[in-house]
Amino acid sequence: MKAWESNIRKVVPYVPGEQPKNKKVIKLNTNENPYPPSQKVTEALHRMETEGMRKYPDPAAQQLVDAIAHTQGVKPSQIFVGVGSDDVLAMAFLTFFNSEKPILFPDITYSFYDVWADLFRIPYECQKLDENFQIRKEGYLKENGGVIFPNPNAPTGALLPLEEIEEIVRHNQDVIVIVDEAYIDFGGITAKGLLQKYENLLIVQTFSKSRSMAGMRIGYAIGNEELIKYLNDVKYSFNSYTMNNTAISLGTAAALDQEYFEETRQKIIATRERTKKEMASLGFTFADSMANFLFVTHERVKAKELFEALKAEGIYVRYFNKPRIDNHLRITIGTDEEMDTLFDFLRTYLKKH
Amino acid sequence: MKAWESNIRKVVPYVPGEQPKNKKVIKLNTNENPYPPSQKVTEALHRMETEGMRKYPDPAAQQLVDAIAHTQGVKPSQIFVGVGSDDVLAMAFLTFFNSEKPILFPDITYSFYDVWADLFRIPYECQKLDENFQIRKEGYLKENGGVIFPNPNAPTGALLPLEEIEEIVRHNQDVIVIVDEAYIDFGGITAKGLLQKYENLLIVQTFSKSRSMAGMRIGYAIGNEELIKYLNDVKYSFNSYTMNNTAISLGTAAALDQEYFEETRQKIIATRERTKKEMASLGFTFADSMANFLFVTHERVKAKELFEALKAEGIYVRYFNKPRIDNHLRITIGTDEEMDTLFDFLRTYLKKH
Repeated sequence: MKAWESNIRKVVPYVPGEQPKNKKVIKLNTNENPYPPSQKVTEALHRMETEGMRKYPDPAAQQLVDAIAHTQGVKPSQIFVGVGSDDVLAMAFLTFFNSEKPILFPDITYSFYDVWADLFRIPYECQKLDENFQIRKEGYLKENGGVIFPNPNAPTGALLPLEEIEEIVRHNQDVIVIVDEAYIDFGGITAKGLLQKYENLLIVQTFSKSRSMAGMRIGYAIGNEELIKYLNDVKYSFNSYTMNNTAISLGTAAALDQEYFEETRQKIIATRERTKKEMASLGFTFADSMANFLFVTHERVKAKELFEALKAEGIYVRYFNKPRIDNHLRITIGTDEEMDTLFDFLRTYLKKH
Repeated sequence: MKAWESNIRKVVPYVPGEQPKNKKVIKLNTNENPYPPSQKVTEALHRMETEGMRKYPDPAAQQLVDAIAHTQGVKPSQIFVGVGSDDVLAMAFLTFFNSEKPILFPDITYSFYDVWADLFRIPYECQKLDENFQIRKEGYLKENGGVIFPNPNAPTGALLPLEEIEEIVRHNQDVIVIVDEAYIDFGGITAKGLLQKYENLLIVQTFSKSRSMAGMRIGYAIGNEELIKYLNDVKYSFNSYTMNNTAISLGTAAALDQEYFEETRQKIIATRERTKKEMASLGFTFADSMANFLFVTHERVKAKELFEALKAEGIYVRYFNKPRIDNHLRITIGTDEEMDTLFDFLRTYLKKH
């Protein structure tokens, strides 16, 4: 090791899903929305001018914050925005998880949580999902330095009932409980209603899935004003201006088009329900997903083998080579046409294997 | 204090310069470029489509990285990009400054350095500028956990000669030395040439000043491949996708238009040299700035008073209420017309006060 290397923070980074260059690929591997952003976003893009780009953007991204607050029915002072929900979550880890006690999250969950904990040297303890891949609330009632879980959980898609979320939040009023609702718009019930009762709850959502805006990097947190202020203090200590001009303008347009949002999320929910039936008839089992993906395992064919066969066919899904889930595939819900291509391939493949 | 507040990271955030809503204001307070971005940026904006925004952007922002590498004459693997140079610097603090020994930076400098050090609990020790606001290289030859300084320094504008930078880098080969070159394009000499000799050197630059792109949030680091890899590992542990689609496309267009870059920076340099003469003739003194601002003090009138008078007139400059510099104003170089308005006001004001 070189002398200058000794003080370097060494980490094992999160590995994002592949972004194949070939446009013909059917991309069911990163939980993106198969539909383009709202027409209002296109109109906002066409209205944009470069003249104003010489100046710093509004550090508070007030226009975007106001639009999200309006859509969510909360005060603007209850909204924190960031460069995707990953940025929001990273800031929340840095702001809220400073105890010497371990934070708690599921053993099978969004694979960024342990990466952030390692990055910020936060102790953590994983709580096992039950054998049906459901979160067991009992795991989160012990002493801890904070709690985080996605609802619906990723990559399982399973939803935790609101009563159980409330029990976790109520039992942990001395720490912050973060509910990561990246996939909530596909049929789950948001925990937002609990915000009036519990000051220690932070909810994180994103424009990347249900708003078709993964490429613009917009996420947000909803919480009580005090939590949001603490988050903003840390954000302003990290980077004053995180949201660029285009993210503010296009994000605002996306937030305000509730009609298109409703239309596309209902389409995805319908396709998902159809996909469940097709996949079950093909011999797959899965938790009852309320997200825009299914987490499936086949009664006979190994996940790894199927993953490779699908990839060779130009159909990308996600395979995690991790304990307990290394015989599962996470399949994003695409358009009906994309799913039909998947079903056709699987029917043929499974006959032969 | 509420129970849940005890584990919260509490910080005193950086306060950015004011962004007045009134468009008639002459804005000389945040070191923005008075000229709009390149016409190539406008063309790139017009070519953009929203269809692709449903997908995650390229996490490596390769197109932008390649364009910067091409412009800088280095390998793409020597470039790290971020959401403004603040994001790049924050990542660099987190990655490289993990010693128990204090990092060193000037007492009068970019006011974000101590904010990042506090945020990440990094010990630091400020080294006093001399009475002419010049960095004294001797202060950086003692034992330390890392070194950072801007060149030209902010808010003074003073340039450190390349030989002295080399001496600092050479004496500190067991730590990382960061030269923050946010303002280097306005007449300074970059330390880039030292990269072949010293592995411990990281140079940070930005699109916010000389590329007229503050609103798009693009900064970058140049260093040896190993340092860049460490930075990327931490970045991928924080947020995989920091650069959105528009930042990648518009940033690439800006990077590749060297002609416009040359033209605008020469215009700003010429206006700055004229401003020096005018300000001197009005009784101001200042370090010989090589940046797009002057840091001035008047022989008679107090800075605070002048700051308020200018603001009342709709001319915004920056005043720092801090030890040693509380009788100075930082004035960004605007267009010739903007500077003439400033000179006219000052002439009249100084006759009366």
